[in-house]
Amino acid sequence: MTIWIEQRDPAEVEADIASAHGPLAGLRLAVKDNVDVAGIPTTAGCPGYAYLPERDAAAVAAMRAAGAVVVGKTNLDQFATGLVGTRSPYGAVPDTRRPEFVGGGSSSGSAAAVACGAADIAISTDTAGSGRVPAAYQGLVGIKPTVGVISTAGVVPACRSYDCVTVFARDLDTANRAMGVLAAGAPDRAWPADVRLAAPPKPTVAVFDSLPRCGTAELAAFERTVNELRAQGVSIVTIDPEPFLAAARLLYDGALVAERYAAVGEFVDAHPHLVDPTVGAIIAGARDLPAHRLVSDLEQLDRLRTAAMAALAGADALLAPTTPGQPTIDEVAADPVGVNSWVGTYTNFCNLFDLCAVAVPAGLAGAAQFGVTVFARPFEDAVALDIAARIPSAPIDPHPSPGRGPLAAAPAIHPQPSPAADPQLSTEADPQPSDSSDPQHAVTGPRGFTGTDPAWPLWVAPTTDLIVFGAHLYDQPLMFQLTDLGARWAGPVRTSPAYRLAALDTVPPKPAVTRTPEGTPGISVAAERWILSPAALGRFLTSLPSPMQLGAVELDDGTWHPGFSCTGAAAAAARDLTPHTSWRTALPHLMSNSD
Amino acid sequence: MTIWIEQRDPAEVEADIASAHGPLAGLRLAVKDNVDVAGIPTTAGCPGYAYLPERDAAAVAAMRAAGAVVVGKTNLDQFATGLVGTRSPYGAVPDTRRPEFVGGGSSSGSAAAVACGAADIAISTDTAGSGRVPAAYQGLVGIKPTVGVISTAGVVPACRSYDCVTVFARDLDTANRAMGVLAAGAPDRAWPADVRLAAPPKPTVAVFDSLPRCGTAELAAFERTVNELRAQGVSIVTIDPEPFLAAARLLYDGALVAERYAAVGEFVDAHPHLVDPTVGAIIAGARDLPAHRLVSDLEQLDRLRTAAMAALAGADALLAPTTPGQPTIDEVAADPVGVNSWVGTYTNFCNLFDLCAVAVPAGLAGAAQFGVTVFARPFEDAVALDIAARIPSAPIDPHPSPGRGPLAAAPAIHPQPSPAADPQLSTEADPQPSDSSDPQHAVTGPRGFTGTDPAWPLWVAPTTDLIVFGAHLYDQPLMFQLTDLGARWAGPVRTSPAYRLAALDTVPPKPAVTRTPEGTPGISVAAERWILSPAALGRFLTSLPSPMQLGAVELDDGTWHPGFSCTGAAAAAARDLTPHTSWRTALPHLMSNSD
Repeated sequence: MTIWIEQRDPAEVEADIASAHGPLAGLRLAVKDNVDVAGIPTTAGCPGYAYLPERDAAAVAAMRAAGAVVVGKTNLDQFATGLVGTRSPYGAVPDTRRPEFVGGGSSSGSAAAVACGAADIAISTDTAGSGRVPAAYQGLVGIKPTVGVISTAGVVPACRSYDCVTVFARDLDTANRAMGVLAAGAPDRAWPADVRLAAPPKPTVAVFDSLPRCGTAELAAFERTVNELRAQGVSIVTIDPEPFLAAARLLYDGALVAERYAAVGEFVDAHPHLVDPTVGAIIAGARDLPAHRLVSDLEQLDRLRTAAMAALAGADALLAPTTPGQPTIDEVAADPVGVNSWVGTYTNFCNLFDLCAVAVPAGLAGAAQFGVTVFARPFEDAVALDIAARIPSAPIDPHPSPGRGPLAAAPAIHPQPSPAADPQLSTEADPQPSDSSDPQHAVTGPRGFTGTDPAWPLWVAPTTDLIVFGAHLYDQPLMFQLTDLGARWAGPVRTSPAYRLAALDTVPPKPAVTRTPEGTPGISVAAERWILSPAALGRFLTSLPSPMQLGAVELDDGTWHPGFSCTGAAAAAARDLTPHTSWRTALPHLMSNSD
Repeated sequence: MTIWIEQRDPAEVEADIASAHGPLAGLRLAVKDNVDVAGIPTTAGCPGYAYLPERDAAAVAAMRAAGAVVVGKTNLDQFATGLVGTRSPYGAVPDTRRPEFVGGGSSSGSAAAVACGAADIAISTDTAGSGRVPAAYQGLVGIKPTVGVISTAGVVPACRSYDCVTVFARDLDTANRAMGVLAAGAPDRAWPADVRLAAPPKPTVAVFDSLPRCGTAELAAFERTVNELRAQGVSIVTIDPEPFLAAARLLYDGALVAERYAAVGEFVDAHPHLVDPTVGAIIAGARDLPAHRLVSDLEQLDRLRTAAMAALAGADALLAPTTPGQPTIDEVAADPVGVNSWVGTYTNFCNLFDLCAVAVPAGLAGAAQFGVTVFARPFEDAVALDIAARIPSAPIDPHPSPGRGPLAAAPAIHPQPSPAADPQLSTEADPQPSDSSDPQHAVTGPRGFTGTDPAWPLWVAPTTDLIVFGAHLYDQPLMFQLTDLGARWAGPVRTSPAYRLAALDTVPPKPAVTRTPEGTPGISVAAERWILSPAALGRFLTSLPSPMQLGAVELDDGTWHPGFSCTGAAAAAARDLTPHTSWRTALPHLMSNSD
C-alpha cells in the first residue's frame, strides 16, 4: 500500500475512538503528510525534508478537539506539487478501483484512505486542484473552501497565497460537518457581513459553452449531469471558458510558481538528489524568474478574474467537470508535466480567482468514476454546498474487495455507507419538515443536503435570525425577498403562548402577530425561522413597508429573536384568526371567506 | 515657475468656469501629469515618455462632470518615483513659502498649484506618500483614500497594487466634496456592508511611543497636537512603531520596487538617457530582482501588517507626523535616495498596510509648516476624516507674496481663504443644529468637520437610515449603541403629522411613537436621523429588546425610512405626552412628574 507514510498503532486508534466525544466523535482521520501532527514527522513527501512537529497544525487540532481520531499520515505528490499522485518516493498512489490509473493528487493518499474505507475523513490541501482531482477519481466529496477561512498554520506551504486546507469524505454531510469544525477556529480572513447563506430555491448555474481537452466519455457524463440539474428546475446558462483556462495556464507557465520556490526552493537547491526529479525541476526552474514578470502575471490574472466574474455575474455558481479525464500511471510517466497540466484544466483557475468549490461524484464516465465541481464566489461556500447537494450520482462501490480488479463500466451494487445521510441520494421530493402543532398541514421545506447539520459557513459567518409568520414562510409569495438576500430556511418554530394572530387587509394577505398585553391570555403561533446575514436583515428592514414592523419575538423555548409584527393601529383593525394558530392553516379559510 | 508642465489658456478656463455646474462648479482643478486629460500630453514627468490621451482618466472625467475646470497639468517626481519634488526634468518644485526647501513630491506641482492659489483642488496620486508629503510641506489637506475605491483608469502606474488617486485642497470640506465626486464613479473595489461611517464622539487615537528620525521641532509640534486632542477628550494610546517602520523599509529596500519596473521598466531600459538619473537607477535596479524574493517580501509584509493591526486593535485611528522634517533642495541633491527615504518614514507603510489616510496642516514646526496624518483601517475613511477635522491648526498664510522670502518662525497673519468652511478653525463648541419646531430646545449635535457635506464615503458606501425619537437621540443615554456600530448622526427631522408621542415605563425612559389609525388626527414628532451600514442596522435590530420595534416611519417630506416604534400593547399602556411633540422637551416634565 502506498497510501500511508506513517500509520498509528491500531490499538491506540481504537482506544482513542472509544473515548472520543464531540461533533466528529470517532471519525477516523487521515492527514496529508504536509500537515503537522504532533509527534509524527512531517515529510511533505520528501524524507530528506522531514521534521518532527511539536504541535498539531491548527486544522488537525480542531478536528481532534471535535473527536476525530488520527489514523495516520498520507502520501502525496512531493511538496504538494502535482495533481497525479505519482510524484512521491513513497510510490504512486493508484485509483483504488482501477489500479492502472492514477488516483489523483497531490492529496493522493488522503483520498485513497477514505476511498478504501481506512478513514472516514481526510485533511488535504489544495492549491491547483489537489483537494478536488483525487475526489473525482475516487468517488469522493472534496470541499475546497474560500481561501483563508481555514487556518494554514502548521501546513508546509506550496503557493502560500493560494493554499487551502480541504477535506475529503464519502458523503457531503460528513465533509460539511468537518468543515464546520475547521472553520470554527480563528480564521486568517474575516467573513463579510453580507454573506449569502444558501443557494436560491431555483438557482442559476453557469457551464462553459465548450469543454476543451475533455474526453468523450466525460463530455457525455457532464451533459447527463447538466440535464439532470435542468430537470430539477435549475437554470443553466453558458459562458466562455477562455478567461478560466487562461488563468490555469498562468499557474504553471507563468511566474506564480515562484511561490513554490519561496516555500521550499532553498531546500531543493541544497539537496537536489533528495527531491523527485519532476518536482525538483518545477521548483528549481522558478529560481530565476524575475519579480517584474510575477507582477505582470498578477496583473494579467486580475484582468482575467475581472472577465471571469463578469461572465458569472448572472449565475449563482459555475459547474464544470472536475477533470477532463483520468490518465493511466504509464501515461503520466511518459509525459509527467504535460499530463499533469491537462488534468488541472478545470481545477487550476479556482484558487487564483478566489473561488470556493465543492467536488462531488457524478456517476461514471465510461469505466472511470466521474466527478463535477461546483464553484462559487468567495465566501459563498454555502451556495456551492447547496448546489453540489443537487448533483445526482448513481451509487458506485468506492472500495471493492482487494483483488476484484477494475469494475469497468459495470455499475457497482453496494450502497454508500449511510444512505440516509447521503444528500446525493435524495433526488426525490423535498424534505417535509413537520409542523408539529399543525399536523394536518405539512410545511414544504427547501431542498438541501440533508439538513442534519447546517451548511458549515453558518458555524462561522456573522448571522442573525428572522422569525416569520405569513407571506415570508417557505413557498409563500414573499419568500423571494429573503432568498434573494441569501437567507437560509431553518425550519418551523413556535412563539411563546403570548401572542395573537390576525389578518391584515393587505395584498398579498399578511398576518398581524402581536404580543398580548401583560396579563392577557395569548396563543403560541406557528412560525418559521430564517438565518441571514446582518446586512441582509438591515436591507430587509429598510425595504419593509408600513404597517409591518420587526422586533424581538419570544419563542416557546424562552429565547427572543428578531421577527415580524406590525403597527398597533394595523393590528387593532386586523381580522382575528382565532382559533387558528398558524397562518398556513388559516389561509384557505381566509381566502374563501374574503371572496 | 516649475509647477506646470502644461497650462490651459486662461480665457478658456474662465469660459468653462462661467458655464460650470455641479457639486464642484467652478473649482479650478490642477491635474498631476501622470493622470490623463484628453487632448493634453501625459508625460509622467518624462518628456520622452509622453503620449496624447484621447480620453480623460476616470478621476478627471468625474471631477469635470461635477463642474471642476482643469487649469493645467502639474510637475511631479518622474514616474511618481520620489517624495521630494526634485526628480523632474521640468525642474524642482520648491516649497512656495520657503523656496530653498523642497515642496514635497511626487505630487509636487499639484500641491504647489493649490498652495499658491492657482488651483482650488488638485488630483494627485499616492503610493508611498506622494499625496501626503507635499500637503505637509505646503500647508494643505491631502486625502489618501482606501486603495481601490477610486478608479485608477487613465493613471500611469507606479506600483499598481498600491497606487491611489488622491486630492489636495486648502480645506477639508473641499477635499471631502471632491472625494465624494471621485468615489461616486465605479470603484475598483466594492465597499463592505458594515463600514463605520463616523468616528465615535470620544475617539481613541494611537500614537507611536517613539518617533525615530523625527526632527526636534517636529517632535515638539507633534506633542502640541497630541495635547490639543487630549484636551478635546480624545483618548491617546501609544504603540510600538517598529512594524510600521519595517514595512516602510521594505518598500524601497525590498523587492516591491519590481512593480515600478513592471510599469515603466521597458521604457527605462530602452531610453536610459531620457530618464532622470535617480529615478532610472531605482527602476532599472529592480529589473533583476527574483520573483521568489518578491514573494518572501510580501509574506513578510503580511506578518508586519498583522502585527500592526493587532497594535491598533483598541484604537479608532493612528496619528503620526506626516514627515519627520523638511529637507532643503541642496540636502536632497547631496543624498537623493537617503533623504527621500527619510522623508517617507511615516508615509511609506500606509498603502502597504491597506490603510486610508487624511493629512492635515498642524501649525509650524520651527519655521517649517508642520502636518500630521490620521490613518484608519481600510474603508474607515469617514473615521479618519472626522478625527482629522479635530486637528487644530494656527492659520498660516499658504501663499505669501512673491519675493517676501521665508517666513522663518514668525506666524503668518492671513486667515485661510474661507474660515467659515474650515473645520480646523472650529475648535470651539459643537455645531448647534436647530430643531426648528422646538426652538426653545437646541439640539447638541456631534462635532464634525463642517457638515456642509456628508463624509465622502456616504456618497458610495452602502448605507441606510434610522429615525430615532428618544434614548438614541444625540447625547441621550443609548446613543452609544449607534455610535459603537459606526453610525453617523445626520441631524434633526420630523415625522409627518400622523403620529402619537407617549412614554413607556422603561429605564431609561423610552418614547412610544406610533402611527395613528387612518382618519385619526396625529402630530408631527421631532426626531433625529442616523446613517448606518446595513449590517449595523441588522445588528441593532437583533439586539433591540421588546417592546421596541422598527418599521417604516413617514417624515414630513413624505419619504419613509426605518425608524423606531413599539408594540401595540406597550403603546396602549404608555403615558401620552400631548401637548409635547418632542422627547427632548417632554423629558424634563416626564422626569419631574414621575418623582
